[in-house]
Amino acid sequence: MALESWNDGVSKSAIVDFVARVTKDGGAQYFPPPERVAVFDNDGTLWCEQPIHVQIFFLIDRAKELAARDPALKERPAFRALLERDFGALLANGKQGAMELFAATHAGMSEDEFEAIARSWLASARHPKFGRLFKQCTYRPQVELLGYLRDNGFKTYIVSGGGVDLMRAFAEEAYGIAREQVIGSSMKLRFEIKEGRPHLMKVGELGSFDDHEAKPANIGLHIGRRPLLAFGNSDGDLEMMRYTKGGAGPRLALLLHHDDAEREFAYDREFKLSPLSEALDKADEYGITVVSMNRDWKAIFE
Amino acid sequence: MALESWNDGVSKSAIVDFVARVTKDGGAQYFPPPERVAVFDNDGTLWCEQPIHVQIFFLIDRAKELAARDPALKERPAFRALLERDFGALLANGKQGAMELFAATHAGMSEDEFEAIARSWLASARHPKFGRLFKQCTYRPQVELLGYLRDNGFKTYIVSGGGVDLMRAFAEEAYGIAREQVIGSSMKLRFEIKEGRPHLMKVGELGSFDDHEAKPANIGLHIGRRPLLAFGNSDGDLEMMRYTKGGAGPRLALLLHHDDAEREFAYDREFKLSPLSEALDKADEYGITVVSMNRDWKAIFE
Repeated sequence: MALESWNDGVSKSAIVDFVARVTKDGGAQYFPPPERVAVFDNDGTLWCEQPIHVQIFFLIDRAKELAARDPALKERPAFRALLERDFGALLANGKQGAMELFAATHAGMSEDEFEAIARSWLASARHPKFGRLFKQCTYRPQVELLGYLRDNGFKTYIVSGGGVDLMRAFAEEAYGIAREQVIGSSMKLRFEIKEGRPHLMKVGELGSFDDHEAKPANIGLHIGRRPLLAFGNSDGDLEMMRYTKGGAGPRLALLLHHDDAEREFAYDREFKLSPLSEALDKADEYGITVVSMNRDWKAIFE
Repeated sequence: MALESWNDGVSKSAIVDFVARVTKDGGAQYFPPPERVAVFDNDGTLWCEQPIHVQIFFLIDRAKELAARDPALKERPAFRALLERDFGALLANGKQGAMELFAATHAGMSEDEFEAIARSWLASARHPKFGRLFKQCTYRPQVELLGYLRDNGFKTYIVSGGGVDLMRAFAEEAYGIAREQVIGSSMKLRFEIKEGRPHLMKVGELGSFDDHEAKPANIGLHIGRRPLLAFGNSDGDLEMMRYTKGGAGPRLALLLHHDDAEREFAYDREFKLSPLSEALDKADEYGITVVSMNRDWKAIFE
């Protein structure tokens, strides 16, 4: 049974009705399979992003490991703030401090080396509240939805502010989403020959920060088609949702509202790193369907 | 019969043997379908790039049309050089002149508007020597090869210095390559709301010039897997071929040599815009298989 972790109601009906319309051969609102593109944010949409993004947990663990090998790093303000979890000081260091941390932990190595580090971390790192592996903090109703869309001829993509390489290290296993269908924030890559072997090096320079306006722009660059369906959970997804809704014919934009403190978390406007505010206020105006975790989901995790 | 426009010989055997090895279930050199990535250059590899790239013919026709509507453009050095086909003057204007021309003809409009212009041009623009539509100047042996690879579980990509949007306007029809599997040079995209409708605008700023080192870097960004097979025809493809060959297990890099003045063109080192020189000289050293158009292809065009 498809979407079995979704309660019957407005949200589930909106999804099922939409898919029926765009896939009905000969129907007025039919889209052929190549045009069936569905884009999903990752953090807070496909997996848990509380108390802070998984990427930040990874960043902290990596920074600890680097500092253990090179104690001089602990004297650098951005590292010190991160390692002492002094988030006030971290914010005070601004973008430059953040880039220093990302460059140190996410660059200066080949893509293959990063992949091995990410896989090894994901194999053991656990969520502080749920005790399960982070990669098992994926939402079961969403995994069902991804499969349901693919069964109906959709190509499913991640379009997330998260780092593309960390996501690619688990997205195929967790979501059935191939590496080439993962779009995220990225460091620049440089081709080089290292010990006679050609490699791609991750260099300490931002390629794309895939949030807000950058999301539709990256959809244009990577996919070249306007999606039929977009699913997000924060204001950073609003441009992607509006771009999706702006296409001709039926389009579906879905917004997950975390309103379930008991089974997961309840938050929106106050989550400073990635607030949900404007998208919630204007959902009606923009034709966005709000999904309530509490009301619409029978189960949360896989 | 697969590859029927390929003559029997070393090149065809290299392809067929390679595909047999990587697809043989249980074989020592087996790769599962998700890892079967094949990347193809476009200009000179999948379609004709002589006497000059199709993109330049498009650029000239677009510049003419713009200058007809706005005669002041004719006084601008880059436009004048292009319209008078004074290629010496064009080169003298350097990169800045080239960017001015690309910005005027390939930007300042939405992706949808550019797509309509490109499709309309491709529907009528003809090759000066062959008299056929440019979009029919695709190579029949290559279209067969793309299909053969897909029949064997490969995902086929274009990775070309050509503009991504011009290629996307015909690649699906001509090669069976979906828009999201076309990687090319690109202008930056900006999300904006125009008359209440969200659009992606092509802005007059280079996003990526997808040649040489940028090709493997873009493969990393867009695909995130090292290809098993790469096919090119110029030094601009050498880094992509070396990156491909640098992976573990069997990999195939193919280089098309245009040595058929009668049926198409014969050229290599002297084609200034995109020479074939180092890749030809070092093919043996790098394990690249040189395909001779004259010897290996029974037919040229579709």
